[in-house]
Amino acid sequence: MSKGTMERRSLLQFRNGHPAEAEDWIVVEEPLEIRLQGESIAVIMRTPGQDLELAAGFAFTEGIIRSAEDLGALRQCRTEGSDGFNVVEMQLAAGGAFDRGKLFRSLVTSAACGLCGAASLQALATHATPVSSPVRIRRDILATLPDQLTEAQAGFGRTGALHAAGLFDREGRLRVCREDVGRHNAVDKVLGRTLLDGAQGHDAILMVSGRTSFEILQKAAVAGVPIVAAISGPTTLAIEAARAFNITLVNFLRGRNMNVASCPERLVL
Amino acid sequence: MSKGTMERRSLLQFRNGHPAEAEDWIVVEEPLEIRLQGESIAVIMRTPGQDLELAAGFAFTEGIIRSAEDLGALRQCRTEGSDGFNVVEMQLAAGGAFDRGKLFRSLVTSAACGLCGAASLQALATHATPVSSPVRIRRDILATLPDQLTEAQAGFGRTGALHAAGLFDREGRLRVCREDVGRHNAVDKVLGRTLLDGAQGHDAILMVSGRTSFEILQKAAVAGVPIVAAISGPTTLAIEAARAFNITLVNFLRGRNMNVASCPERLVL
Repeated sequence: MSKGTMERRSLLQFRNGHPAEAEDWIVVEEPLEIRLQGESIAVIMRTPGQDLELAAGFAFTEGIIRSAEDLGALRQCRTEGSDGFNVVEMQLAAGGAFDRGKLFRSLVTSAACGLCGAASLQALATHATPVSSPVRIRRDILATLPDQLTEAQAGFGRTGALHAAGLFDREGRLRVCREDVGRHNAVDKVLGRTLLDGAQGHDAILMVSGRTSFEILQKAAVAGVPIVAAISGPTTLAIEAARAFNITLVNFLRGRNMNVASCPERLVL
Repeated sequence: MSKGTMERRSLLQFRNGHPAEAEDWIVVEEPLEIRLQGESIAVIMRTPGQDLELAAGFAFTEGIIRSAEDLGALRQCRTEGSDGFNVVEMQLAAGGAFDRGKLFRSLVTSAACGLCGAASLQALATHATPVSSPVRIRRDILATLPDQLTEAQAGFGRTGALHAAGLFDREGRLRVCREDVGRHNAVDKVLGRTLLDGAQGHDAILMVSGRTSFEILQKAAVAGVPIVAAISGPTTLAIEAARAFNITLVNFLRGRNMNVASCPERLVL
């Protein structure tokens, strides 16, 4: 149904100043339109593949649907004249309701109405509650996650342009790994797969290849994920969201080094 | 008017497995609401600073305004109860018009209506034309841009979480450099500053610290920038946009190595 994650492109390659015609692997980026009840709710620039997961995860982590039970059907199709399957249509289950005006506000204002950090967290609180999971993870197991994510990430080494997200259990076993040109999309695919499997995030660790901004924490909070780990740094609002939603936030996780900005009690030393 | 780019946060820092209380510099992320003619048109998660540039650049590169002449006034304010100046209000100049329905479509569908790569480029073509600039740059000058950008980028080394964009002239002189937690925002700030200065992008080189996705090329095309260079890789749609809009696209620019995906005739070897 979908194109590959990477494609070959010819280009002019300079090595030590000398040009030569060459081919390189390039990460695929294409728009995906997400429709709900026949209405276009978003167009996301994404790497094709796992588009149903991406659509379901987006709708879930943005608060548009509350659980897998809200979803009645997912269908991938193409628009007339297009050569790619770049539309996902979602139907709510019986009893589900959809207010387009509300969705518009959700898309434009994200969790940011009120427009200071505190107000963003209040807005987030309307569709997420603090995570109360008793999950703990051993520090030495946590230290293995970056390498596991890199190994599971097929595309980055060849393209240099793919973000990865992985969901691990407390024993450090990888449940699902997804890649995308967009950081948020990789997380939405992972959480969408989890949603479609009828599984939960409340006993899992979300590991991301890049940075942790507010929206990554927002998505983790909505999915009930108690631990978020990243190879790079956080933002101020990500730290505040992690603290408000009782999520353990680990950054710069590299071997035996890491920074823990919130809830270190979930780490077993 | 705005908070700093970085703030100190206390956290638990593990070095070689041993925990200690520490402080670290964290990049500031806060929402900015952009209003046009009194209506909220977007809320962007951004690093505070140069918010008027960001708002103007966003409106320009997204095709909402066509030129600096369309802008009548820019004003930064705060909402009641908030401690930050997280709202920018823009007024169109006399004679300007604003169609909220059109803007909504623009925001939701970006340049992606039709939903295949070709259609994205067609949509982009409605508010950008191929760049016909005769600008050329010497390869040895181009090679100096990454280090110049890194030196101008005050925040990254301390936070590990800031993207930079810089606009250079053909002699390799930096005109403006901006940082932001968001890749697109850094570009919008640079192009917004250029717009507010009444300057043009048609004789400039845009250098970004990260990757080049479709939206970076879209913004460059709208601003008429003929050369885009990046330290990391491109996406397929970025390459197609560069070729369609006659923009020289340089990736993996590192010393005497680089990949040139389009319009190498602007490079003087």
